Amino acid sequence: MNFQGRDIASIEDFTREEINYLLNTAKAMEPLAAKGSDMLKGKILANIFFEPSTRTRLSFEAAMLKLGGSAIGFADAENTSVKKGENLADTVRTVENYADIITLRHPLEGAAKLAAEFSKIPIINAGSGAEEHPTQALVDLYTIKKERRTIDGLKVALVGDLRYGRTVHSLAYALSLYNIELTLVSPDALKMRREVLRAIQNRIQVSETQNLEKIIPQTDVLYVTRIQKERFPDQAEFAKVKGAYRVDLKTLANAKKDLKILHPLPRVDEIAPEVDSTPQACYFRQVWNGIVVRMALLALLLGQVK
Amino acid sequence: MNFQGRDIASIEDFTREEINYLLNTAKAMEPLAAKGSDMLKGKILANIFFEPSTRTRLSFEAAMLKLGGSAIGFADAENTSVKKGENLADTVRTVENYADIITLRHPLEGAAKLAAEFSKIPIINAGSGAEEHPTQALVDLYTIKKERRTIDGLKVALVGDLRYGRTVHSLAYALSLYNIELTLVSPDALKMRREVLRAIQNRIQVSETQNLEKIIPQTDVLYVTRIQKERFPDQAEFAKVKGAYRVDLKTLANAKKDLKILHPLPRVDEIAPEVDSTPQACYFRQVWNGIVVRMALLALLLGQVK
Amino acid sequence: MNFQGRDIASIEDFTREEINYLLNTAKAMEPLAAKGSDMLKGKILANIFFEPSTRTRLSFEAAMLKLGGSAIGFADAENTSVKKGENLADTVRTVENYADIITLRHPLEGAAKLAAEFSKIPIINAGSGAEEHPTQALVDLYTIKKERRTIDGLKVALVGDLRYGRTVHSLAYALSLYNIELTLVSPDALKMRREVLRAIQNRIQVSETQNLEKIIPQTDVLYVTRIQKERFPDQAEFAKVKGAYRVDLKTLANAKKDLKILHPLPRVDEIAPEVDSTPQACYFRQVWNGIVVRMALLALLLGQVK
Repeated sequence: MNFQGRDIASIEDFTREEINYLLNTAKAMEPLAAKGSDMLKGKILANIFFEPSTRTRLSFEAAMLKLGGSAIGFADAENTSVKKGENLADTVRTVENYADIITLRHPLEGAAKLAAEFSKIPIINAGSGAEEHPTQALVDLYTIKKERRTIDGLKVALVGDLRYGRTVHSLAYALSLYNIELTLVSPDALKMRREVLRAIQNRIQVSETQNLEKIIPQTDVLYVTRIQKERFPDQAEFAKVKGAYRVDLKTLANAKKDLKILHPLPRVDEIAPEVDSTPQACYFRQVWNGIVVRMALLALLLGQVK
Repeated sequence: MNFQGRDIASIEDFTREEINYLLNTAKAMEPLAAKGSDMLKGKILANIFFEPSTRTRLSFEAAMLKLGGSAIGFADAENTSVKKGENLADTVRTVENYADIITLRHPLEGAAKLAAEFSKIPIINAGSGAEEHPTQALVDLYTIKKERRTIDGLKVALVGDLRYGRTVHSLAYALSLYNIELTLVSPDALKMRREVLRAIQNRIQVSETQNLEKIIPQTDVLYVTRIQKERFPDQAEFAKVKGAYRVDLKTLANAKKDLKILHPLPRVDEIAPEVDSTPQACYFRQVWNGIVVRMALLALLLGQVK
Repeated sequence: MNFQGRDIASIEDFTREEINYLLNTAKAMEPLAAKGSDMLKGKILANIFFEPSTRTRLSFEAAMLKLGGSAIGFADAENTSVKKGENLADTVRTVENYADIITLRHPLEGAAKLAAEFSKIPIINAGSGAEEHPTQALVDLYTIKKERRTIDGLKVALVGDLRYGRTVHSLAYALSLYNIELTLVSPDALKMRREVLRAIQNRIQVSETQNLEKIIPQTDVLYVTRIQKERFPDQAEFAKVKGAYRVDLKTLANAKKDLKILHPLPRVDEIAPEVDSTPQACYFRQVWNGIVVRMALLALLLGQVK
């Protein structure tokens, strides 16, 4: 399989076979992540982030450095030529001269696709609008596979803000390529958008509920997301919801021993700190996985791994 | 010719012979820009930017990385000791300890010269005040020479804001060292300053006009700059001017086949997107040239190329 | 002595023997600082700065680059997940995946200790709250030793803001491990805190005064700090104090020939520019020393030097 020169604009551009190939390549990166490599020596990654995202940016930078390459870029749009009125197409056609590969974080839907059209070098979508965060979805799949050895056959629950979170949309799509049962757990105001739901329902069994407690006992993978106060016009409503979707030791009392809890981070109150030291908590190991998956993407897109 | 340890404070510090030498060195950098090099391994570039300028900063960083060096610095003055009241001389005498070469972007005229006086390591002016942007002028000359094989004998027109744009001042001076005919095209409020004009009129033939359309047919190089709304107290006046200096396919209908259009970027409305795909459009190739010219400067000033 | 895997949270964690060991290692770094090294090739430093500090950040970055490593991170908390409500423990457990060693600058007392508890990789305190700046104290000691060949036996005066400046607290503690006489010179409102004073008075002779002029003649090392306007509710009071603690050539007329003046920088008015060219002025050389000391710390904590 040859990924050289491809873009990672949407998780929907990938077949199950391609995703498996990416995950296997990520696995092969583990030793290089631990001890470094010169595989991408001389290559430059440009991070162009029109929205701040320390986590994703540092993850890509670490991935590039561990492969011997280097990184440049900007971390928010405040100090850039965008403020002078430059459009995205021009920014891309400028930055492609400085680098060998670009990661793009942008507040607008479709930004990565537009960028990919104009760019001569590979574009990786590092989050666009509320819909797409394909590399996070790959990290999530990799984490599930690493923790559970398989994705097929699992009962996966997505919990929290399923409406505005860009990671859950990409992840739901990615999961629908596997033979899983998906449960969507959210307050009514934060239910997954109908169009995303329809797309995945064609392929896998999906059920929706507001009750986290009830579905915990049969769940294999619990994917928790942050619920943002700003989403609720009524603060009393928010307080109620917040309590109902908090995962703590009591929640875990009824869980399977080999339940795996994932979270894209940052976490606020939705997982109690007491959970951190349980074997179920995978979210900090998930950060490490983010590096190896991104190493795989960089190496594949730059043609250094086939 | 030995550039080791010199500063690049003003384009006016260079003779025609020196500039030609720089341009030839830049040409020799083209293969290194494409495949990387270890020429400056272990060397550190410090970007100290008291005004944001993503483009120039990334161009220098890319140049340094492609030569195997590395870059540190800050991208605006907001988070620096300047806010604590430190003067430029102290900043320079601090940063010279961290690096082997410094690029400085500063809002004040003369900042680069002051910095050069205090610094033990080379200072490169990355834009100071409204007057100087010597490395951009070198990039522009390099682009003209690469696109037209020669600078001498050409009819060059500078279009747009010739009053406040720092690139046009440095470029006008640099062009005046060659045997060219220069046409200055601008609205009345944005005419080139008299002192700059006088300096170059001693050496080359210069004419001024407000009419872009009229001079297009005989022009060999059209250098377009952005006209900023803020420069006009009267917005109706701005709207009129904006329309008159927009380059589009209709403008090009009367142009020479081998006209070359340059722009320091970012571009807003002054060149229509439809022009981008014409053979006349050089402005994105100009970005690439920025890297090779800056590679040449870094290598020469650090004494790695003679 | 083995420092591998240790944290640098507080200067108080170190014995005199350990500090001497660090200073000797720093001395051994001088040639590597001048010509570069590959000692930390493949290692990544993460700077996580919740408060801006260009100087300390660039010093650590330069130290890492000179040892062949690389650096990532953020320079202020504005654009980070902290804004989304993440706590420090989570930030650390995330960033430790990206890097081999972390420097932390934080507005709160105790932040570095908390971070060290949660981190699997070494944490270096790059300034926390108003109390601790251990690496600056080591740089100060190194500078004194390099300039005077010894620390023992010297008369050291700390001048200026001894109440709020984090560097003087760490430095006072560090100095108290040596056989010195310490004089604290400050306006009444900016006297050193009683608890710091008590801790060092057990070990060395300390005297307090408001009169800089009087103590100058017998002083060997004068450590000057910036007095900030904001500390004074009454601006007339500030103006008076500012004048009284300004070091200029007149101040130096009565000083020993081999007096050494240090300053953590940035400097505003407290040392007149005319002093810069005297042999007594060490503060710019002190910046260089900051790099070699930090190179020693990075190499020791990462186990590359024993």
